[in-house]
Amino acid sequence: MSAVTSTRVVLAARPHGEPTTDNFRIETAQVPSPADGQLLLRTVYLSLDPYMRGRMSAAESYAEPVEVGDTMVGATVSQVVESRSPRIEPGAYVLAYSGWQSHALVDGNAVRVLDPDRAPLSTAVGVLGMPGFTAYSGLLKIGRPQPGETVVVAAASGPVGSAVGQIARIRGARAVGIAGGPDKCAFVRDELGFDAAIDHRAPDFAEQLKAAVPDGIDVYFENVGGAVTAAVLPLLNLYARIPVCGLVSQYNAASMPEGPDRLPGFMGLVLTKSLTIRGFIQSEFVQAMYADFERDATRWIGEGSLKYREDVVDGLENAPTAFLGMLHGKNFGKLVVRVGPERA
Amino acid sequence: MSAVTSTRVVLAARPHGEPTTDNFRIETAQVPSPADGQLLLRTVYLSLDPYMRGRMSAAESYAEPVEVGDTMVGATVSQVVESRSPRIEPGAYVLAYSGWQSHALVDGNAVRVLDPDRAPLSTAVGVLGMPGFTAYSGLLKIGRPQPGETVVVAAASGPVGSAVGQIARIRGARAVGIAGGPDKCAFVRDELGFDAAIDHRAPDFAEQLKAAVPDGIDVYFENVGGAVTAAVLPLLNLYARIPVCGLVSQYNAASMPEGPDRLPGFMGLVLTKSLTIRGFIQSEFVQAMYADFERDATRWIGEGSLKYREDVVDGLENAPTAFLGMLHGKNFGKLVVRVGPERA
Repeated sequence: MSAVTSTRVVLAARPHGEPTTDNFRIETAQVPSPADGQLLLRTVYLSLDPYMRGRMSAAESYAEPVEVGDTMVGATVSQVVESRSPRIEPGAYVLAYSGWQSHALVDGNAVRVLDPDRAPLSTAVGVLGMPGFTAYSGLLKIGRPQPGETVVVAAASGPVGSAVGQIARIRGARAVGIAGGPDKCAFVRDELGFDAAIDHRAPDFAEQLKAAVPDGIDVYFENVGGAVTAAVLPLLNLYARIPVCGLVSQYNAASMPEGPDRLPGFMGLVLTKSLTIRGFIQSEFVQAMYADFERDATRWIGEGSLKYREDVVDGLENAPTAFLGMLHGKNFGKLVVRVGPERA
Repeated sequence: MSAVTSTRVVLAARPHGEPTTDNFRIETAQVPSPADGQLLLRTVYLSLDPYMRGRMSAAESYAEPVEVGDTMVGATVSQVVESRSPRIEPGAYVLAYSGWQSHALVDGNAVRVLDPDRAPLSTAVGVLGMPGFTAYSGLLKIGRPQPGETVVVAAASGPVGSAVGQIARIRGARAVGIAGGPDKCAFVRDELGFDAAIDHRAPDFAEQLKAAVPDGIDVYFENVGGAVTAAVLPLLNLYARIPVCGLVSQYNAASMPEGPDRLPGFMGLVLTKSLTIRGFIQSEFVQAMYADFERDATRWIGEGSLKYREDVVDGLENAPTAFLGMLHGKNFGKLVVRVGPERA
């Protein structure tokens, strides 16, 4: 097979503060034929996730940054165009980590084969993939909601938040979701079945949140930071747990915000309320919990107790704009880019 | 027996910010004869502990505040003067919670009888009491030091910090203590056997701390807050644990400190380092761990692997000044007030 041309989105420059489309550049490159053990993939769906903002920066983090000039990283659902791996047939669909590009060469051992009859392919990067597992592992391992307790989560119409609230309810807890705007709140309450949904854009957001948690908050699943966290803190109960999986509201901050310094007060609250704060990346729990997650989530989706919504953007060239919008909550559901058709 | 006169220290006024001796007042009162089931106690040792600063304030906390005009609370080693409890003989020594006073009436079921031959009586409010158990439970349950890991603790010559570091070493970890001044540092290193001791008053404290933890910090046992915490944070390793049992450096703060606001950066660190921050009060772990603590601590003291130092102040009338000094680290070892002689 002759070489294919891959379209890709590279990091053109590191952002200082708020990123713009100027931080990205679209390029094309020839992809050589696969070597022994390799696969040539064409991307069907590219997952866009908040953690990618961290990869654009050189600051120390839990993962290496993307180098300037390199292809942006990301999980994909891809189809095998050509295989030199004995275990994978051409035409198979795989979960890969081949980034913001239309085609890629990957090691055959670095992908997981997907069953297209089990669930829609895009769910492999959503409710049945990393975001769903982030919700499942962080909530059950760190949050540990008990029946009758109150769980609060922001970005509640998004892929992590929507699963957090629904799994909390499956475990017998009350779920209160925070989302941006009346449409998302209606979806969270009426479609996902949360006990309450609060619009963080409302001028009386903090009062509404307080009214929605008459028994206080036992688990706050932290994925946004900022004003939502500030409203949550005074409502935390003794022994409340805060799994921290993201802080999307502050990823674009270029410097420390002005005072007063709230850290001493926060530590005082940790002490007087015997709080547990625990940062995590879902990969930490894969070995211990992923098999349970796949079994449980598949069953819950089949039973209708775990619903999800996707926001599909067409065309790799639209990935930068879609990604920048996501950092401000413009997506409604799990954001994926349809890079190519499911069936070529 | 005729009524006895009790001398007591009451809360004269709530402090705003830094407390002074004007916040206390010495009074005398007649103590009636014990009713059925009660004991009349005379105080031998009164324990002075940083948590008492919190009880002087009306702010919400994990325990009720002392009311203005009421006797200051605190643990005591007391001797039974008169008993109307069938289980306790006159002359027995008990661990009580009868506060800053020379005599008290207490319920016979609210005390624990001490064996004066097992260990010095004063250790019941020190290394074999609440401070020792705070160190033991917080370090082993939350900090979970592994062999070869590095544990850092401040107030390292004090009753909690000294036990934290020594128990860390017993568990095979490296112990780095922080203390105020060369005498305390020498004691921590040479007498208690910590691997290193750093003077937080040194102008290059942060650099010295960094040099003392070449492999980073896996457990930071938080009991002070402030500048020590600020120096520790950049040195924390992935998956580091921070048991929070006290924040003595900030107990006297009357308002939020000036900016910048360090809370967003702290939460970012929690996320990127997958940190665990856990506030606790030792009482949470009594049921699960106290018997183990008594067995282990008694054995370690006997073997010489758990040493302790006491700072004994004579006379109840000196309790306010000694307490105020403790909030600034003026004590050297566990601070106790000898209210009366061991043998009356």
